[in-house]
Amino acid sequence: MILHGGQIIGGTSSAEGDRTFVGINPATAQATTPPVHEATPAEIGRALGLADAAFDQYRRLDADRIAAFLEAAAQAWLDLGDRLLNQAHAETALPLARLTGERARMVNQARLFADLVREGSWRDARIDRADPGRQPLPKPDVRRLLEPIGPAVVFGASNFPLAISVGGSDTIAALAVGCPVVAKAHPAHPGTCELIGTAIATAAEATGVPAGVFSMLHGATHETGLALVRHPVTRVVSFTGSMAGGRALFDAAAARPDPIPVYAEMGSTNPVFVLPGAMAERGEQIAKDYVQSVTLGTGQFCTNPGLLLAVDGAATRAFLDAVGEHGRRVPPAAMLHRGISGSFAAGLGRLRATPGVRLVAESALAPDSGKSEGQCAIFVTNVDTLDAVTSLWDEVFGPVSLVVTCARLSDFERVARGMRGHLTASIHATPEDMSACGGLVTVLERKVGRIVFNGFPTGIEVCAAMHHGGPYPATTDVHFTSIGSASIDRYVRPVCYQNFPQQALPVELRDRNQRRIWRLVDGRPTKDDC
Amino acid sequence: MILHGGQIIGGTSSAEGDRTFVGINPATAQATTPPVHEATPAEIGRALGLADAAFDQYRRLDADRIAAFLEAAAQAWLDLGDRLLNQAHAETALPLARLTGERARMVNQARLFADLVREGSWRDARIDRADPGRQPLPKPDVRRLLEPIGPAVVFGASNFPLAISVGGSDTIAALAVGCPVVAKAHPAHPGTCELIGTAIATAAEATGVPAGVFSMLHGATHETGLALVRHPVTRVVSFTGSMAGGRALFDAAAARPDPIPVYAEMGSTNPVFVLPGAMAERGEQIAKDYVQSVTLGTGQFCTNPGLLLAVDGAATRAFLDAVGEHGRRVPPAAMLHRGISGSFAAGLGRLRATPGVRLVAESALAPDSGKSEGQCAIFVTNVDTLDAVTSLWDEVFGPVSLVVTCARLSDFERVARGMRGHLTASIHATPEDMSACGGLVTVLERKVGRIVFNGFPTGIEVCAAMHHGGPYPATTDVHFTSIGSASIDRYVRPVCYQNFPQQALPVELRDRNQRRIWRLVDGRPTKDDC
Repeated sequence: MILHGGQIIGGTSSAEGDRTFVGINPATAQATTPPVHEATPAEIGRALGLADAAFDQYRRLDADRIAAFLEAAAQAWLDLGDRLLNQAHAETALPLARLTGERARMVNQARLFADLVREGSWRDARIDRADPGRQPLPKPDVRRLLEPIGPAVVFGASNFPLAISVGGSDTIAALAVGCPVVAKAHPAHPGTCELIGTAIATAAEATGVPAGVFSMLHGATHETGLALVRHPVTRVVSFTGSMAGGRALFDAAAARPDPIPVYAEMGSTNPVFVLPGAMAERGEQIAKDYVQSVTLGTGQFCTNPGLLLAVDGAATRAFLDAVGEHGRRVPPAAMLHRGISGSFAAGLGRLRATPGVRLVAESALAPDSGKSEGQCAIFVTNVDTLDAVTSLWDEVFGPVSLVVTCARLSDFERVARGMRGHLTASIHATPEDMSACGGLVTVLERKVGRIVFNGFPTGIEVCAAMHHGGPYPATTDVHFTSIGSASIDRYVRPVCYQNFPQQALPVELRDRNQRRIWRLVDGRPTKDDC
Repeated sequence: MILHGGQIIGGTSSAEGDRTFVGINPATAQATTPPVHEATPAEIGRALGLADAAFDQYRRLDADRIAAFLEAAAQAWLDLGDRLLNQAHAETALPLARLTGERARMVNQARLFADLVREGSWRDARIDRADPGRQPLPKPDVRRLLEPIGPAVVFGASNFPLAISVGGSDTIAALAVGCPVVAKAHPAHPGTCELIGTAIATAAEATGVPAGVFSMLHGATHETGLALVRHPVTRVVSFTGSMAGGRALFDAAAARPDPIPVYAEMGSTNPVFVLPGAMAERGEQIAKDYVQSVTLGTGQFCTNPGLLLAVDGAATRAFLDAVGEHGRRVPPAAMLHRGISGSFAAGLGRLRATPGVRLVAESALAPDSGKSEGQCAIFVTNVDTLDAVTSLWDEVFGPVSLVVTCARLSDFERVARGMRGHLTASIHATPEDMSACGGLVTVLERKVGRIVFNGFPTGIEVCAAMHHGGPYPATTDVHFTSIGSASIDRYVRPVCYQNFPQQALPVELRDRNQRRIWRLVDGRPTKDDC
């Protein structure tokens, strides 16, 4: 498959703009694509116009057809075989083994959501039956279900070119519930995006889904992103990326004549609390796992553990020695793109220059900046310095972390209380540590979306119970997750029908429960007819 | 009970400020309260500080205790007897019969949410069990449930001094799920607010709920409202009122360093579509019900049907005659306060002055502006004028409505397509009209939160299936309802626990389903242990 570098708009290719850029291999600085055309305002308008026009037809399609569409897309990605993996490898420098795993996650996500659509209970159908004889007023018949919110704009992440990009979790969740999607390709892997997007468009055609349901636009400028958010047709925006980028989109959406939600996942520092018992009992193992988690994927995860708190003492000193040992062994590796490796180097520079902060672990080999490489770098400081220099909480994206030693265990809770919002926190504890733990969990429940016990936060399970979100600035809306089946909540809204005749009701709300979905009838969950 | 005109902060009265105002009887212009003290910044800070401090204890209370608290508040409102009804009548001019009904709704809401808390399935507990043997990676144990979002600021509505005010649906929904509430008393009925708020504080004390869980502050200025929204402790804001007020709070919340959600319900015009068959078959009855719905509560409902579309012809002319007849018989009545009757008169003036718009029904008796009275006023225009003068869509709060005659039935869908968001739409149709109806329903599903069939939108059933919300500008967030048990969604957020030991988990997530709530275990709803 030869890349064309244009937009995919309702199943056809379009390259009207004069502004172009190319994909770049971060390790070689060579081009990975032909010139890629920045979407023009006319192309943006066409993509969203088609999405709007396709919406009513799409949201009324049989669940089986939407499920078949998602499964066909998943199969088309697999059918791309090594072509997709090699393109993604060239554009992101992520190892092929990692990309193979990520492709499995992307494929499994699409299949998971296909199952969810076929099963159908996601509609949260509720039926409160009439009681014409009720005093003092008759009770009406009231029924509601979840409907798709409308055309969605999805900004993919640079660090998951498969699982959180053009065919990633937000695209699939939105498509699953009946929202047309205009995906904004990430300029750091435009060729990968084109392969994935073309596969989705082909799957739509093959399964009889209206072509306007999926478009993909290229853009390397802020203007293109903002135009997508400001377009009157856009009903919801999801974004995974930097704080500055996410907040800019959020602000633009809030300033619209009709504000729309922007679900921005902006990463975080994901603090890890190692309690003294755990440190004494298995500090060596925690050190090994910590370095592995910090450096996994060259540290380019939004759940990267950027901060680890430990109580001062012999066990913690041994832990730091072990961290130094493991860190040295991690070779530098190419980062996702030049912008990221540049920011990483700058962040490292700031840490090195901070009084009271010292390096405890660094890759033995020096990174090659010509290859956009980043090295493992783990620093240590004490809690007084953390209290004084709040910028130490800022995320440095890459294989870097900061160990903070505390004079006493009570510092854990105090530090947690002062934290802003994060995606995750982790606690390492023995059964004996648990009594000291309760208060910490209570504080963390208010500060993060997910708490991990005796483990590290990298590696997110895609399931019904997953919550990948958290209080600001981890995300712009604490209600919603971007990973797992609950991510459909971003793309739905309730619609209520009062005293409707049966035939005019959506099929999920009729007395006869034709689809055998779970419904709440007069307050009780049931699959029965009513 | 003698009113003191101060704030209720954590169970104690406080009147530190020098700025005061009084409640005014709109019908007599006499004071209904002693001087009411505008909350000072220090009082605002204290109320929110106590809410924050009480949060962790409150959210961990037994469900039974929270339910008992809500029920005690409901009983305390009833125990106020005529004192509450008379105070509300004096401050709002709403008839005692209406207020008696509204009190029943307020009491029933509190009991409904007490039942919901006791039953417990609102937590939406999800458990995905571990699979250590899974290839290529072990599957972790992942569990999540809904937790309260944090201290809530609730702005009550002027038009429901009982059911949507200090003890109304938002306060009760927030308290039910474990959020402390700082209620902003409405300056148009401060004495009613004080009675209700005092009852809640007393109920908290009687049931052993921390005093900081509920506070009530007075304020007649924008500054007080904005200070509540901008306070760092505030996690969520709900508001029912005007477009200008709601948008100002939304903008302030979006501009915070850490944006928070503002759920503003800002009313709408609630269009009614009368299809030709229904008009021919029962135009006379529809006219009667229409006038009744328009003038119910002197038209002071956010679901007031402000616009009715009909197809030109003999049946519609007869309908208009009947509307004229019924409208004449409706006596003017005092409106909620002088500001509202003034805006109503101004809105009527604009309609009278609009070329192409003429009056078809007006109360035979003239309103007494000295008593803040508003009269029934129903206008008629044609669809071309509606197309040309988009301000005809603007809500005029009061017993006023506009009939729009269309040359052809297809105008209905065209007009609906051009609509902004509304809380409701209504359709009157016979079985023979239904074929023309499908397309209209499809359009309306995207434009409103609730569609009523052969009825009018006033009178909102408080139940699980109710959705009282809608696309902007009906509300600022299309996901959420302010009425019915789903309103708890405004006040909750998911928290996820990975690989947690049983005893460290919230009780709802342990293997043993001690509370026998519905849970999603490995994707299946069940009440069983796991």
